[in-house]
Amino acid sequence: MTGAGAHTTELATRGEERLTWVRARMRLLAAVRDDFAERRPFRGMTIGVGLHIEPKTAVLLETLAAGGADVRGTGNHGSTQDDVVAALAARGIPLLGTRDDSLETHVANLHRTLDAAPAILLDNGGDLAVMAADRGMASSIAGGTEETTSGGTRLRQEPAGRIPFPVIVINDSPLKAIAENRHAVGQSTVESFMRITNLQVPGRRFVVVGYGWCGRGAAQYLRALGGKVAVVEVDELRAFEAAFDGYRVASLEALAPWAEVIITATGRPGVVPAAVFDLVEDGTVVANIGHFPWEVDVEGLTARAAAVTDVGAAIQRIELEDGRHVILLADGRMLNLAGTHPKGNSIDSMDLGFMLQALSLERVATGASSLVLGPQGVPDDIERLIARRVLEVMGASR
Amino acid sequence: MTGAGAHTTELATRGEERLTWVRARMRLLAAVRDDFAERRPFRGMTIGVGLHIEPKTAVLLETLAAGGADVRGTGNHGSTQDDVVAALAARGIPLLGTRDDSLETHVANLHRTLDAAPAILLDNGGDLAVMAADRGMASSIAGGTEETTSGGTRLRQEPAGRIPFPVIVINDSPLKAIAENRHAVGQSTVESFMRITNLQVPGRRFVVVGYGWCGRGAAQYLRALGGKVAVVEVDELRAFEAAFDGYRVASLEALAPWAEVIITATGRPGVVPAAVFDLVEDGTVVANIGHFPWEVDVEGLTARAAAVTDVGAAIQRIELEDGRHVILLADGRMLNLAGTHPKGNSIDSMDLGFMLQALSLERVATGASSLVLGPQGVPDDIERLIARRVLEVMGASR
Amino acid sequence: MTGAGAHTTELATRGEERLTWVRARMRLLAAVRDDFAERRPFRGMTIGVGLHIEPKTAVLLETLAAGGADVRGTGNHGSTQDDVVAALAARGIPLLGTRDDSLETHVANLHRTLDAAPAILLDNGGDLAVMAADRGMASSIAGGTEETTSGGTRLRQEPAGRIPFPVIVINDSPLKAIAENRHAVGQSTVESFMRITNLQVPGRRFVVVGYGWCGRGAAQYLRALGGKVAVVEVDELRAFEAAFDGYRVASLEALAPWAEVIITATGRPGVVPAAVFDLVEDGTVVANIGHFPWEVDVEGLTARAAAVTDVGAAIQRIELEDGRHVILLADGRMLNLAGTHPKGNSIDSMDLGFMLQALSLERVATGASSLVLGPQGVPDDIERLIARRVLEVMGASR
Amino acid sequence: MTGAGAHTTELATRGEERLTWVRARMRLLAAVRDDFAERRPFRGMTIGVGLHIEPKTAVLLETLAAGGADVRGTGNHGSTQDDVVAALAARGIPLLGTRDDSLETHVANLHRTLDAAPAILLDNGGDLAVMAADRGMASSIAGGTEETTSGGTRLRQEPAGRIPFPVIVINDSPLKAIAENRHAVGQSTVESFMRITNLQVPGRRFVVVGYGWCGRGAAQYLRALGGKVAVVEVDELRAFEAAFDGYRVASLEALAPWAEVIITATGRPGVVPAAVFDLVEDGTVVANIGHFPWEVDVEGLTARAAAVTDVGAAIQRIELEDGRHVILLADGRMLNLAGTHPKGNSIDSMDLGFMLQALSLERVATGASSLVLGPQGVPDDIERLIARRVLEVMGASR
Repeated sequence: MTGAGAHTTELATRGEERLTWVRARMRLLAAVRDDFAERRPFRGMTIGVGLHIEPKTAVLLETLAAGGADVRGTGNHGSTQDDVVAALAARGIPLLGTRDDSLETHVANLHRTLDAAPAILLDNGGDLAVMAADRGMASSIAGGTEETTSGGTRLRQEPAGRIPFPVIVINDSPLKAIAENRHAVGQSTVESFMRITNLQVPGRRFVVVGYGWCGRGAAQYLRALGGKVAVVEVDELRAFEAAFDGYRVASLEALAPWAEVIITATGRPGVVPAAVFDLVEDGTVVANIGHFPWEVDVEGLTARAAAVTDVGAAIQRIELEDGRHVILLADGRMLNLAGTHPKGNSIDSMDLGFMLQALSLERVATGASSLVLGPQGVPDDIERLIARRVLEVMGASR
Repeated sequence: MTGAGAHTTELATRGEERLTWVRARMRLLAAVRDDFAERRPFRGMTIGVGLHIEPKTAVLLETLAAGGADVRGTGNHGSTQDDVVAALAARGIPLLGTRDDSLETHVANLHRTLDAAPAILLDNGGDLAVMAADRGMASSIAGGTEETTSGGTRLRQEPAGRIPFPVIVINDSPLKAIAENRHAVGQSTVESFMRITNLQVPGRRFVVVGYGWCGRGAAQYLRALGGKVAVVEVDELRAFEAAFDGYRVASLEALAPWAEVIITATGRPGVVPAAVFDLVEDGTVVANIGHFPWEVDVEGLTARAAAVTDVGAAIQRIELEDGRHVILLADGRMLNLAGTHPKGNSIDSMDLGFMLQALSLERVATGASSLVLGPQGVPDDIERLIARRVLEVMGASR
Repeated sequence: MTGAGAHTTELATRGEERLTWVRARMRLLAAVRDDFAERRPFRGMTIGVGLHIEPKTAVLLETLAAGGADVRGTGNHGSTQDDVVAALAARGIPLLGTRDDSLETHVANLHRTLDAAPAILLDNGGDLAVMAADRGMASSIAGGTEETTSGGTRLRQEPAGRIPFPVIVINDSPLKAIAENRHAVGQSTVESFMRITNLQVPGRRFVVVGYGWCGRGAAQYLRALGGKVAVVEVDELRAFEAAFDGYRVASLEALAPWAEVIITATGRPGVVPAAVFDLVEDGTVVANIGHFPWEVDVEGLTARAAAVTDVGAAIQRIELEDGRHVILLADGRMLNLAGTHPKGNSIDSMDLGFMLQALSLERVATGASSLVLGPQGVPDDIERLIARRVLEVMGASR
Repeated sequence: MTGAGAHTTELATRGEERLTWVRARMRLLAAVRDDFAERRPFRGMTIGVGLHIEPKTAVLLETLAAGGADVRGTGNHGSTQDDVVAALAARGIPLLGTRDDSLETHVANLHRTLDAAPAILLDNGGDLAVMAADRGMASSIAGGTEETTSGGTRLRQEPAGRIPFPVIVINDSPLKAIAENRHAVGQSTVESFMRITNLQVPGRRFVVVGYGWCGRGAAQYLRALGGKVAVVEVDELRAFEAAFDGYRVASLEALAPWAEVIITATGRPGVVPAAVFDLVEDGTVVANIGHFPWEVDVEGLTARAAAVTDVGAAIQRIELEDGRHVILLADGRMLNLAGTHPKGNSIDSMDLGFMLQALSLERVATGASSLVLGPQGVPDDIERLIARRVLEVMGASR
């Protein structure tokens, strides 16, 4: 065996080991895989994939292959885990791309994915769908799924008719809102706060900015662990709900001097403007759990800093000119993906999200006539079927 | 003074005393009253009223009168509190009807209410609106409000055009769903269970049937007090939510042998069929918190009873033929209005509901052109204004 | 039948009806009664009783009679429920005293209880034990039990040797501290607050004064219902525990302007001095859940009042001279015994307390040699046996 | 600079960086340090140290040095962090030992610590105290502190008079029981479970074995995060408390088939015997949070295993012969110190524990006459002073 071959084998072995724990805990997908292996709904079809490649997505791709699909595609730019790619190759799922690809190479890989003439697209951010439309391939595409809300938004902003095949937007699912946005993000927020800072929660004063699904989850679990929690929310109806849930509700300006920790969960830019840091006490910690890294005005904050020091993994100490300091976690990026060895959302919540993917792809493959053209939510019968399956797999009745 | 006059004075005094506590705690209405007294939005208008007459509604009527309205009307059939009527009369608000009126007298009083040619209707169950339509009075009516969901449903089932004026259905309000259905009903459920049965909650096994707003509230507060709570819910998506909220979720048949207490909150008839009582242990308690008394099949249960004994206020012991017994609370009627001296929902939640009424009536009086004809929800700007006011009055920021 | 006889029969019937619900729910005592009926540990013995006579205590006395005891005695002064006395008489347990007895009559009844030459005393407040010592009867008495902490304290303050027989002080029990002081009092506090005031708990600001067993329970359950709770506690170690339990902890002076409701649970006099009312906002509610009515300085408060008005059952409105008012609940007496139809602590917690009584009395009757002379706690083996029985009866394993 | 010198400088720099975050968050010790620097209670005294050397303990040693102490000593065997040793050396606190020392070298280092003729001992496990007694040095020693419960137990088992100086056992502190055992361990349990397994908590079925301080904390926080929690407890009184706290309480045998996760917290060996694994479902997870690695019978479990595979950091998959598998976390060792980059208990709880150390050492140095000889708890006035300081530093009043 050549050196490169030996290296590939070693990579594949390591990838396969990492897959083992995750695969065994993705119980919903396991049942789908068995079912797909029997019915082979994707027989004779190519699925073109553009997706983060890590152990949990690998289990989804295995599941599609078990259903008869010829899975072709590429990772997203910059996030591909090479050992997982190697493990998938060893199982007969050849993907393009490596962690270190240039953007040009990545774009080329997306094109090569479409060169394989996929009938179905498994998309992330809308790249494949838009590219296919640009290339005039739409007529040969039965439809696809889109993983993200931002991809869904992008497709919905396209002119009518531009995406002339159905695309099921997975993140529209109410099941995902509950399982992932509220509970999984809420819990990974408290886990990540403790893991990264090693600070105690009981008695600590937290301000949660935003009372959407993620903010509700973070507030609920911080309080459940004994934290004192106040909420900032500009929408009156949500603010009202927060007050009835027993939280203190006020403006960020009013709460800033009280806060020991400020956590943003709004999805909107600049909700913690730099001027807020004039109001906080020495040592206040600030972090973000929203998808985008723009909620805290990090640029404005560092612009007024006397010094910035790394004092731990994902912990920066920002000295202000008046002698106070602020602790910024994860550079204002998603807290639950930061620090050493973050795990992100629970395996269970990803299992649910990928069962939504698998059944939605099957619907595209075998029942596209029941779908409308363009972006749309997950069909209600799939939501209900999965809800029933989750209740069984959780042992909800016990 | 004649004997009757003396009696009326005494009644009015007693009514006024009861009004004092409630009025002082209805802080939202107090501010509306001051504002109305200054702006007098109902100046020159008659408001025709059909409503339960008790201290909280009396404060609403005072508020409307302060706004310049000539308030005319009658109580609902069978629920009128004569001392409150006397107190209102003493304050210049003459209402028709007494607690002991026959149905004929009550219907006559509704007609007399319409005889006063009201421009605005404050309705409960849709009686005044339908009667006005029948009498061909619609053209002289600017619009109205409807307090109940069942009244809203009734109006929505009428043929299009039959109600040719706007009717704002108060119970459609999302604020009410949160404040009243979830929190106020949830809390009065635990309060009433303890008040009526004197049984301990910690460690007791409760089955809550239905995971709508009321069921969520009951489950939340029973668990908060240390109860073990399982949920029955036929809708998969709600069942899923209950499971993620940490409850055991199963069918009533599966949970019946485990239950110590079964509480229904579905709004639907027969959700606890008599056959369920074949499965329960000796001494199981059953109660209903839904609006209608039909959720537990009381008729079917008593039909198979060997004996039925009252063993306390709102507590019946029903002996089954095999020697087991079941405890039925409040005859299957709303638990939180049962037993000795029930208080119903909190003053605060009624204050909120009646501010919705007052501002909706003002909108009908002064801004009906912004409304559509027929039944409709509370205008969003009123919801948001009230949400802001509630946050202030609660001192949410403290 | 004479008129008096008819009246007695009617009283007994009413008493028996009230006993039915309670007896069926005192499941621990039911098993003790069956066991006692078989073993008859009190055969040939007279038990002299001085105890509040109401349905729950009646079930205890029945249980002792089933064990062979000749039960003789009297109620406490002023609390005797005549229908329960009649029902007990009909079951062969003749008690002395009526609700309206003068203090002289009551003392005479205590003496007549001792005249019956009881071998065992079931005492409340230490009256019988001290009286027996005074009368030189000690040598004929095997021992007894004392229900209250204050009775225990009284006996412990007597000179050594003055009570030359064992007295088991029931309220020393750790089981009672958990089941009754923490959970039952905590829950009856929230139930009584809602029942009496009809005010909403979510978002309301409560200050709990004292973080002993009762204060911990009240704070826990007020917060569980969505209240914002702060704690006042002069003992540093308990204050520390409250802070780690996630409560705001500060002095009453600091918290008074923030409080909407102040609840005392310290057992100590004057913890809410009249001067505190200079600091509170208009409309602040104050109540006490401690045993003694002295925690709020009611005298000092009313001394500075411009007017005092009853505005509901157990609700007084106290106008201060500067225009603010304070709401005093239950005149500063125990909130959970106040208002219309209070139920007090749960049947389950009294069942536990009276099983402690029954087995302690048996120990005095049959195993006094294992006891020391004078006041003492419940024997550990009895605590553990009852703990196991409670776990079974609760169905703790389900 | 030589290569070794450069290496030492680099080590010291890295250690100092790690100290920065921790030192800034140990706010209690910061104030003690300032106070000690002013008063210098240890002036002229040598403190002999045997302690785990990591960033938090380093801050304690700095604090003692600031108080005038000549700090001499060594790390514990096998846990010394060399970068922290280097950083302390750079600050003038020279310690003996490295991570890779043999046991012989370690014992030699303990002797060298005593060779420095310390007046005060800061001990961990009782090694220095026993060794000093053996060497006849007791008369020159004013006293010391002992960090651990097991060290306290060891000293208490020595013959009377063998340790002829006072030793304050820090772990006896009620403050530590609350802050560290209940809250810090409870929270690091849920954090570690999520960090290591990436499994979801809501709806998952946990069995907590043991309802002492740590078990109470783990049960409380697992339930707070939405887990279904049952408790196993052999002590009836604690089992009773768990049932009133609303948990299901049963034997491990009864709960094993229901459990998805079993967590031990008893301190006792073999509480999960290998035979329990005959009863569990496929895939059950088992972990320990007690101090000793003996609660799960790992040896018995692996003895009946068909295969054992590492499937992640601190995750082992143990195949049983009948086809089921068990997941063992951290090899049965303390879960909250396992996996990649564990942080252990919160900085805040260690800050509290080390303030107990610092003030106890000061008491030994300056007020030994108020202490008894031999092992003893922390003086009550120190407990109370620290409780007050923690309340201030936490901002408990806000």
